Amino acid sequence: MTDEQKKKYLEPALRYEIIGCYAQTELGHGSNVQGLETTCTYHPESGEFELNSPTLTSSKWWIGGLGKAANHAIVMARLITNGKDYGPHPFIVQIRSLKDHTPLPGVTVGDIGPKLGYNTTDNGFLMFDHVRIPHFNMLAKYSKVDKKTGEYIRPPNAKLSYGTMVFIRANLVMGVRYALARATTIAIRYSAIRSQFVDAANPKKFNGKTVETPVIDYTMQQYRLFPHLAAAYACFFTGRSMMDLYHRNMKNMASGDFSLLADTHATSSGLKSLTTTMAAEAIEDCRRACGGHGYSLFSGLGSFYLDFLPNVTWEGDNYILTQQTARYLFKTFRNLASGKTNRNKETNFTISYLSTYLENPKKTCPITNGEQFLNPELILSSLGHRSAYLIAESVDLIDNKQRSWNSMLVNISRISRAHCQYVLVSNFWTALQSDERLRKNKPLYEAVRDLALLFSLNTLEKELADFLASGYITPAQAPLIKEQVIACLDRIRPNAVALVDAFSLPDYLLNSALGRYDGKVYEAMTSMAEREPLNSTLVVKGYEEHIRPLTPESTIEPTEKKDDRRINLADVDELRVGQYDDEIPSWRATTQETDPTVIRKMIETILSDLTSTESSNLSTDSVLSDPTLKFNLLKRAIKELGKEIPSHKLGQLTTVDEVIAYFTETETPPLRVRDLFEQEGAFPPNVRFEEKH
Amino acid sequence: MTDEQKKKYLEPALRYEIIGCYAQTELGHGSNVQGLETTCTYHPESGEFELNSPTLTSSKWWIGGLGKAANHAIVMARLITNGKDYGPHPFIVQIRSLKDHTPLPGVTVGDIGPKLGYNTTDNGFLMFDHVRIPHFNMLAKYSKVDKKTGEYIRPPNAKLSYGTMVFIRANLVMGVRYALARATTIAIRYSAIRSQFVDAANPKKFNGKTVETPVIDYTMQQYRLFPHLAAAYACFFTGRSMMDLYHRNMKNMASGDFSLLADTHATSSGLKSLTTTMAAEAIEDCRRACGGHGYSLFSGLGSFYLDFLPNVTWEGDNYILTQQTARYLFKTFRNLASGKTNRNKETNFTISYLSTYLENPKKTCPITNGEQFLNPELILSSLGHRSAYLIAESVDLIDNKQRSWNSMLVNISRISRAHCQYVLVSNFWTALQSDERLRKNKPLYEAVRDLALLFSLNTLEKELADFLASGYITPAQAPLIKEQVIACLDRIRPNAVALVDAFSLPDYLLNSALGRYDGKVYEAMTSMAEREPLNSTLVVKGYEEHIRPLTPESTIEPTEKKDDRRINLADVDELRVGQYDDEIPSWRATTQETDPTVIRKMIETILSDLTSTESSNLSTDSVLSDPTLKFNLLKRAIKELGKEIPSHKLGQLTTVDEVIAYFTETETPPLRVRDLFEQEGAFPPNVRFEEKH
Repeated sequence: MTDEQKKKYLEPALRYEIIGCYAQTELGHGSNVQGLETTCTYHPESGEFELNSPTLTSSKWWIGGLGKAANHAIVMARLITNGKDYGPHPFIVQIRSLKDHTPLPGVTVGDIGPKLGYNTTDNGFLMFDHVRIPHFNMLAKYSKVDKKTGEYIRPPNAKLSYGTMVFIRANLVMGVRYALARATTIAIRYSAIRSQFVDAANPKKFNGKTVETPVIDYTMQQYRLFPHLAAAYACFFTGRSMMDLYHRNMKNMASGDFSLLADTHATSSGLKSLTTTMAAEAIEDCRRACGGHGYSLFSGLGSFYLDFLPNVTWEGDNYILTQQTARYLFKTFRNLASGKTNRNKETNFTISYLSTYLENPKKTCPITNGEQFLNPELILSSLGHRSAYLIAESVDLIDNKQRSWNSMLVNISRISRAHCQYVLVSNFWTALQSDERLRKNKPLYEAVRDLALLFSLNTLEKELADFLASGYITPAQAPLIKEQVIACLDRIRPNAVALVDAFSLPDYLLNSALGRYDGKVYEAMTSMAEREPLNSTLVVKGYEEHIRPLTPESTIEPTEKKDDRRINLADVDELRVGQYDDEIPSWRATTQETDPTVIRKMIETILSDLTSTESSNLSTDSVLSDPTLKFNLLKRAIKELGKEIPSHKLGQLTTVDEVIAYFTETETPPLRVRDLFEQEGAFPPNVRFEEKH
Repeated sequence: MTDEQKKKYLEPALRYEIIGCYAQTELGHGSNVQGLETTCTYHPESGEFELNSPTLTSSKWWIGGLGKAANHAIVMARLITNGKDYGPHPFIVQIRSLKDHTPLPGVTVGDIGPKLGYNTTDNGFLMFDHVRIPHFNMLAKYSKVDKKTGEYIRPPNAKLSYGTMVFIRANLVMGVRYALARATTIAIRYSAIRSQFVDAANPKKFNGKTVETPVIDYTMQQYRLFPHLAAAYACFFTGRSMMDLYHRNMKNMASGDFSLLADTHATSSGLKSLTTTMAAEAIEDCRRACGGHGYSLFSGLGSFYLDFLPNVTWEGDNYILTQQTARYLFKTFRNLASGKTNRNKETNFTISYLSTYLENPKKTCPITNGEQFLNPELILSSLGHRSAYLIAESVDLIDNKQRSWNSMLVNISRISRAHCQYVLVSNFWTALQSDERLRKNKPLYEAVRDLALLFSLNTLEKELADFLASGYITPAQAPLIKEQVIACLDRIRPNAVALVDAFSLPDYLLNSALGRYDGKVYEAMTSMAEREPLNSTLVVKGYEEHIRPLTPESTIEPTEKKDDRRINLADVDELRVGQYDDEIPSWRATTQETDPTVIRKMIETILSDLTSTESSNLSTDSVLSDPTLKFNLLKRAIKELGKEIPSHKLGQLTTVDEVIAYFTETETPPLRVRDLFEQEGAFPPNVRFEEKH
């Protein structure tokens, strides 16, 4: 934007007077921005641009905030001036009236409908039918169109915008670190609470009795979760290093030095691809590692996963992006191989490991026992050699075997992955060596070093086929790596909960019954279920219509047919809740206690029985936040006092005083519907009250 | 159930008079059924059982149909009689009244809340507080309790119930085949329609012009999708073979022959684990391969994925199940190695490949060129050798190196996978050899054979590390496999759409804008978006409250503040819809045509212009089902006739007659709100009409 454009549009937008959106993607065009179809034709005679959507596929689609909220859009449209098409450029267009929010003439706009997640955003569609906007509205910081002649004026340097992409991607990698932290916090905490089966070789004892083993003690569970924990730390260190590199590069570019740009941009493309794919996998792995309860939305993992998923597609599809990375790696390799570039190992990661490879492409791994795999230099040499080997193999196929780019896409995706795994591992070890706080605190250093080892060795193990196929690692060495991975899991186990607690993600943010800091998993599941709206009524809506007619008349006694949506005062002015069949043998006292003093005393006695083992300071107006305590209290109270509590009342009794009050109301008078409606929560919100005329 | 129990409970249930559910899983107990806590204690003095939930974690949880609908449950509870705990047994319990559906005394029941998918099922929780049921209600086909003495009577043969599990798992594998078919149908059809970028080395031409390349022509897209297509066929053949095996085994067991049971049961456990994991991955891979639109629920892949996900957890968690498979494989290997079992290659898959391995554990792959990898016998030998190698390695670690079961769980999971991949590939080739319809139709045979090759070679490629680490395949052979995989993709490409069409999944079942049989992807996306409820109003609810106050008064003209939820007849008896700002240059006719004859003629002319190229038999009362045609018709009609159509009207004009009628209503009289409310759809359902008193 020019300064005038900022004044007219950006300033009011910052005051929320304008609600904007960015309209680039089209119904038929996502990955290929150059293929956009919306046109914006300049008419010098009137000094206006004319936006048009020539086809159905040119409809803007997926635009966040556009569906219902935005009144302006920055629209990417093909600039056509003096009969020539200059490709996509950005224009500011008002799309809805500021008077009444109705769409302006020629504008068709709406919401694109439901999505897998992200449903708080009104993604929209937009079509233009020859909509005219003033010359002023083309964003003109870089490219311009001369108002009088319509002549196109090119931007000074197209590379400038690449810097911003690096910034966005560094933030995405930091976002991945956060996503991994959140998912592993939930799954690891829950795995420490949840027990299943008895590990026969190493049974857990509690009060001298054999109990089930916490699932976190099973190697398989550790293998499923700990690598993701290690990856959270890896992404943190790489995100931090990308951000540093971004700032250095921006500073350099400002003084005309573009030397950092190519590597930074290519690596950031591959890292966005690799890390967001890793995170999507990790969240789902964590969810599945929570067993059945992972499928409940109370786990906090389901919606989070769905909201994270767009990351693998937006800001560059994760497969498409790898081509940018590989193209740069091939070029760098060719330049180093031909001697066009000096083999200078100080320049950057890429040049360094490619140079090492070119010095000795037949190098092999010199390991004879497993412990030698714990050496970071050896790990990095292995990863560097593998990436370089894959690059060399593909460059050979393209340059010497006439393989087409298209036929190489599978290799290309692997190469980008290999390069970025090198970068992640390398940044992890660099951080361990250079971070003062880690170096000065030995136990902390060792805990984080074990994560670095796990991340490194698990990467070697997952990608073992590449190392074996290149001949760098021998079949005899392969089991040594696997052994060391299991040994890492064993060392990390005692620190696992502390390592997720260290992320300090508060409970309200985790929004998870399973991942609570206090470990009260089952209490939280229960109390979340109590709040489920379906549980606010005793009998499900639709019972009268759908279930009752199935029951033969001989089984049921005739009763009034009720409409639970609308109660007419004239028809029923009295009702009782909680009346039951009494045909089943009852275990509770046969006479109902009515003396308020006795009731209070009894409940206090039960309470003191139940809490005597703990040093409890529960007063009668404290909230009964422990469901086990509440359950036992109510159970004994029902038994001793002879009064039943209907299920739907359970959620309403939150303090001991309320429990006492409930049992004291022995002579509940028939309730007047009129009065019930005065009480908040007495009826579900879908019940309306109508006074009879 | 005994016959008396069937009469009392099953018969009314089949008439829907009883709504039942199966209550096994507990809040703290899923995988380990033996760990269930709910008790059912027999009281011989009254001839009753007493159900009780002693802890919070013993609460039944996840029970399908229980939350709001069921009135009876089959409850798995620990049978306690004469002071002894006999572990979980099934009991029939009535939980809700047949009079009014309220929970019976001592029963706490409710819905467990929202889930990632499957939200049409009311999964519920259930607790018992000393609930008594008659002696009759213990399911007593196998185990029994003597009514008078309380003596426990054991079942005749515990193995009988394993047969049923094989049946359920064979059905799950068939379900996987269906899931893979559905997901690949959508993704492959859409990939044939969707074009992105131009493949420079092989540009597509249309009418002499270079156009974007359909994404299905990119190797990467083929590599992402075709293996899942091949897997759909693989699972079909294996599901069919499992079902055969199930019937053979049931017949054998009826005559006392249990020889098939162990292998069938162990293999079915591993196959359930492997194939449901494959399918969950495949559906999500297909979704991502649809780019941004895959994230829209209109893709038909999102909700389908979420509904499929429980398969990886229920009916045996996919990780836990692999232990059953491996335990059997270890036992079989030990028996063959020690000579306790004869090496008879005819018995079953397992004995056959283990015997071959034991004859020559150091065997290597004799391949020197890629084409030799297309030999099914060679493929099966490779897969058999690998599975046997992994089993032998683990048996050695357990028997000779004192490794604990727990420390072997990662290997165990790989072994089950390796074994079942062998089974899938083997069944695929067996079907190709034995299926008459395939053998007699050469082109069909070749198309399916290419899928078998892709499935086989892609499995070798994915698991390459195992083959290399065992020394069976050499580093020099590895690239040959990868080459052949790419060659398979190339051969499958021309048949890909036909191979998914062959599944014959109808559009209504796919429920996907992207996967339609007719390929009208963008038209379907548009017409589905038109039906989005948010698009039924022109201005979003909440505009007056949340957006309008942000707009400064200088920008907007003062108008009456409206409450869009409740319109009072006294305040506003007239309103006009679709009035626009006219400040922007308009491209449409400046005067509005009012003559009905002219209007009808004009619209007919436009229509015949637009449809002249096709042999169209569109009459004026046909539905405008093609959105492109509708868009162009309305656009030209607006232009020629000078009357605007507000966005929210677009969805209401479905036939040409309605379009004509809309343009003919030139002198729209001010509408009376009262009358508008008579018209269906004139107002969104949240608008209420109040007559002023």
